[in-house]
Amino acid sequence: MVGLEGSLGLGFRGPWIEEYGPWVAGRVHLAHTRGVSIASLRWLDGPAGPAVELLDQTRLPAAEVTVTCADIPALVDAIGRLVVRGAPLLGLAGAYGVALAACRGGDVPAAARALGGARPTAVNLAWGAGLALAAWEQAGGGADGAAAALAEAGRIAAEDAAASAAMAGHGLSLVPPGGRVLTHCNTGALVSAGEGTAFAVILAAHRAGRLAMLWVDETRPLLQGARLTAWEARRAGLPHTVLADSAAAALLASGQVDIVLTGADRIAADGSVANKVGTYGLAVLARHHQVPFVVVAPTSTIDPATPAGPGIPVEQRPAAEVTALAGQPVAPDGTRAWNPAFDVTPPGLVTALVTERGIAQPVTTGTLRVLGA
Amino acid sequence: MVGLEGSLGLGFRGPWIEEYGPWVAGRVHLAHTRGVSIASLRWLDGPAGPAVELLDQTRLPAAEVTVTCADIPALVDAIGRLVVRGAPLLGLAGAYGVALAACRGGDVPAAARALGGARPTAVNLAWGAGLALAAWEQAGGGADGAAAALAEAGRIAAEDAAASAAMAGHGLSLVPPGGRVLTHCNTGALVSAGEGTAFAVILAAHRAGRLAMLWVDETRPLLQGARLTAWEARRAGLPHTVLADSAAAALLASGQVDIVLTGADRIAADGSVANKVGTYGLAVLARHHQVPFVVVAPTSTIDPATPAGPGIPVEQRPAAEVTALAGQPVAPDGTRAWNPAFDVTPPGLVTALVTERGIAQPVTTGTLRVLGA
Repeated sequence: MVGLEGSLGLGFRGPWIEEYGPWVAGRVHLAHTRGVSIASLRWLDGPAGPAVELLDQTRLPAAEVTVTCADIPALVDAIGRLVVRGAPLLGLAGAYGVALAACRGGDVPAAARALGGARPTAVNLAWGAGLALAAWEQAGGGADGAAAALAEAGRIAAEDAAASAAMAGHGLSLVPPGGRVLTHCNTGALVSAGEGTAFAVILAAHRAGRLAMLWVDETRPLLQGARLTAWEARRAGLPHTVLADSAAAALLASGQVDIVLTGADRIAADGSVANKVGTYGLAVLARHHQVPFVVVAPTSTIDPATPAGPGIPVEQRPAAEVTALAGQPVAPDGTRAWNPAFDVTPPGLVTALVTERGIAQPVTTGTLRVLGA
Repeated sequence: MVGLEGSLGLGFRGPWIEEYGPWVAGRVHLAHTRGVSIASLRWLDGPAGPAVELLDQTRLPAAEVTVTCADIPALVDAIGRLVVRGAPLLGLAGAYGVALAACRGGDVPAAARALGGARPTAVNLAWGAGLALAAWEQAGGGADGAAAALAEAGRIAAEDAAASAAMAGHGLSLVPPGGRVLTHCNTGALVSAGEGTAFAVILAAHRAGRLAMLWVDETRPLLQGARLTAWEARRAGLPHTVLADSAAAALLASGQVDIVLTGADRIAADGSVANKVGTYGLAVLARHHQVPFVVVAPTSTIDPATPAGPGIPVEQRPAAEVTALAGQPVAPDGTRAWNPAFDVTPPGLVTALVTERGIAQPVTTGTLRVLGA
């Protein structure tokens, strides 16, 4: 193992570590260190030099293994392969990546550009890289710049954890007692320095005794719901049930869902929400069944530079994600697939947007401006 | 190989065998015989005695292997495991199963009951078994009854093939030139003595030069779209692209779908349509995007004994279909799954119902009655 004693960690010691004793213990075991509450991204600074260590999310839940990135190409590759994923965590990956380039004496602006463009839809990536780059520039580069970039990454992590807690507090008000929540993709501690976005609200509801059931869309093609959200739900002791994405319509029709909660990868200035493919369909279905559809995201996800939904670039992923499963082809050789990683939900279908600064409801250019985005 | 010379087959020699030379040749190779146009279900009557041979649809497209059922428990098991599936083909499985029991000297009414209840939602199963049982009874049982049951099964197969051709003719009128069709699950020759239901319409559109693209929902959890419909589309030379079920909403929003075509497993007297889970969500999404949602099914799928949608029993399938893929667990051990095999679409969301007798539009108790259902 490399440099564990010197690791900075992204976690935050404090009351919630006690609260989540068993869960944190499991994660600590995974990270082979102490006092680190999140193991999905860690800063290493041992004898082998600085590096970013990632929990490989493509291998969960079958295996808990890490990938150590000692340079920018390795980190960009890991981002592209979804070893590390999720809007808030990608912000941290961007910032720590810039810090890595700075500490290693590399071309820091080029690193920020490469990281910012590693995936096109999630705006947090370029946001985090940009903040660390600005800190590096302001400190005049060199060793001071490297220290400043690293400190900025740490600040973003602290801010993300605080935002997560604030979103949980605001969002809790929207979950009714006995609430049955449907979610899509993965929005928990795996994607955050805190407890996540939508998942943080769900955890808060559970702690408040309000969560009767968490329905987890499996989230094809990469199954972040079945693999990751079910894994987090199990560790947190939440009542939860997985379903095929296509079964969500029947579930809504059966009256077993009180609220749909999702995260976001980018929110345009008009409130259009880009999120994991399938989110838009859920929003249409929620509206049809008169069930609230609520997005939980930090204001860093709001991109004022993108005026509306059509301006959000949607990443197309390889066909093999759809035509093969667990390495086995399921469709005939050479079958074409249409595989957008995200879709865009117009603001009119979003009942409310929960941020760390409060709730926008309805979701409009005006209410987003009030949040200071 | 057993009794191939004496096989009855379900296929129909005739013009379309010439038309589909290469495809049929592939299937004939599979069946190790000649002049059999469909290999998904065959009647064997060789030295080992009568049996029903099934193309194992759970193994496609990776392997083309058959399962031979020499008794009713084996056939009921194969139906339950989805070795054989699809509404029209299940009707044939029910009828040939009763013929098998009769030819083997078994308890024919008990066989009809076991087959009719092998899966709860598809009404064709009990329908086919019931027709063969009636033929057996009318002939007074014994050898005459066995011959009558077998003849009735053959008549149902011939009728199914004719119905398929008639549905294709009627449904073609609903596909616009340059049509981009979205379909769900598998409704082709694999489930029919003819060319299927919705897939028969799609083939007719292709022949008429009207099909620009067939969009194939992968159809989780058992991937009948990616595995089976893509396989049939490829053999027929159709332009086709597979997508995750959850991507259909974004596809509809992008304006790349002109019509949604699906089959049905049971249609209540009021026009409520039970079909593969995910169909109802597609119907809601099609309505939201003002795209026609059309169901293609023979009138044998209409069940006058079920007055409305809530009366249709929906089969719940094992959690492992969702929580494991290709034998590999994807969710943590012990994760619960909600896994209905079907959902129910209210008639108000169905733009039209195409049957062998014509088109019901709108779909109401009255228009279904006009079709004589």
